[in-house]
Amino acid sequence: MSAVDAHAAGSLTVVGLGPGSAAQRTPAVSAALAAATDILGYQTYLDLAGPFAAHQRVLASDNREELHRARHAFGLAAGGARVAMVSSGDPGVFAMAAAVLEALDHADDPAWRQVRLAILPGVSAAQAAAALAGAPLGHDFCALSLSDNLKPWAEIERRLALVCEADLVLALYNPRSKARPDQFAQALALIRARRAAHTPVVLGRDVGRPAEQLTVTRLAALRPEQVDMRTVVIVGSSRTRRIERPDGGCWVYTPRFY
Amino acid sequence: MSAVDAHAAGSLTVVGLGPGSAAQRTPAVSAALAAATDILGYQTYLDLAGPFAAHQRVLASDNREELHRARHAFGLAAGGARVAMVSSGDPGVFAMAAAVLEALDHADDPAWRQVRLAILPGVSAAQAAAALAGAPLGHDFCALSLSDNLKPWAEIERRLALVCEADLVLALYNPRSKARPDQFAQALALIRARRAAHTPVVLGRDVGRPAEQLTVTRLAALRPEQVDMRTVVIVGSSRTRRIERPDGGCWVYTPRFY
Repeated sequence: MSAVDAHAAGSLTVVGLGPGSAAQRTPAVSAALAAATDILGYQTYLDLAGPFAAHQRVLASDNREELHRARHAFGLAAGGARVAMVSSGDPGVFAMAAAVLEALDHADDPAWRQVRLAILPGVSAAQAAAALAGAPLGHDFCALSLSDNLKPWAEIERRLALVCEADLVLALYNPRSKARPDQFAQALALIRARRAAHTPVVLGRDVGRPAEQLTVTRLAALRPEQVDMRTVVIVGSSRTRRIERPDGGCWVYTPRFY
Repeated sequence: MSAVDAHAAGSLTVVGLGPGSAAQRTPAVSAALAAATDILGYQTYLDLAGPFAAHQRVLASDNREELHRARHAFGLAAGGARVAMVSSGDPGVFAMAAAVLEALDHADDPAWRQVRLAILPGVSAAQAAAALAGAPLGHDFCALSLSDNLKPWAEIERRLALVCEADLVLALYNPRSKARPDQFAQALALIRARRAAHTPVVLGRDVGRPAEQLTVTRLAALRPEQVDMRTVVIVGSSRTRRIERPDGGCWVYTPRFY
């Protein structure tokens, strides 16, 4: 047991804002933000989460410094602060919760283990895009990150091939960055070799925010330039279908039966 | 184009309650429930969503009659009603949205296509269980239904083998029903042949509701009797880790790096 008095430790609550608008943020998250003495996060997400009260300390940090931000949050909380760590979407899905647990797992300071830690889930980007498009995730699916910052590209290609063979719907996060613009084209070539040309594809960019864009296309027509890091890409399975809408658009859904 | 006047048609909004408590339900969903003239759903979910106003019509139906319920909802909406269809979790993840789109896809009545249809996402069961446990879905994962009502069991086993080979975290929905109690044991045997005995497993039952139960165990220790249809089962990947907590419990997370 640590010698630190548990009552001296504060709290760290990792909150998921959902896609962006306040209408899609849970009351539990809004309450945790209102109760915090210190609020940490990437500036874009702090802008979505605010405004904050004058007595609340707000600290923005770079989106790529997740582990650094998590360690800073534990330090504040161990000193007695009520810290809210802001994440977009669901903190548990390609977002801040894993970085916070990594920081705790490798904690130098035993006081960090006395911090009251909680994670409050939210609606993730693929769910928000799926709901606008219909129900493309209505049956078995996978969520994969295409970023090779933390995972070898060969492993990403191996996983893509297997989930295509399993005929899962694919929800692809972090699909295409400026630093590695060609890898998405490689992933797309791999998927095209395994799925029909007419397979429905949904692109959700900034869904739930003012610049929201939803695109429904087909696998054969998808161009890599339509995709960036703010896009979530949903590729249908062999069963995913389109329904034409009277307004000229269409719904996309994956039937529950196989 | 249909001969039906678009202005005569009502609306159908499929709403996701999230795990259960009002604190984890989005304001968009609460607003849609308040604005509805007619509210349809499985009784258990209507109990979570209510109470409703005296002027609102509430119609409970059996949980297994999803397509029937969806067709009834379109009929009401085509007649001018503002219908809310209640789903637990996220309607887009093993819930009502796919059934609603199936009903629309096979619509006999062209008036159904004039209905203003919207789907409002929510926090799904695996996300709620993951948040309580830490961040087990923090890296690549899949969501699979183990129900063979709508999919052959051989296909379920084929998919399980492939996603195990891909080293994805598994979120298993509808894992074990009274009608097919032995299939979960078969799935478990298949997973055990492919994952280490110490792999962390999270069982979330009724998470977010008064009877909430969270169990963290290991693959070798999991007994099928611990699991029923109200449980979501999360099986870690080769990278998923445990962190002991001062209270005797533990956190489970999957690191972001591979």
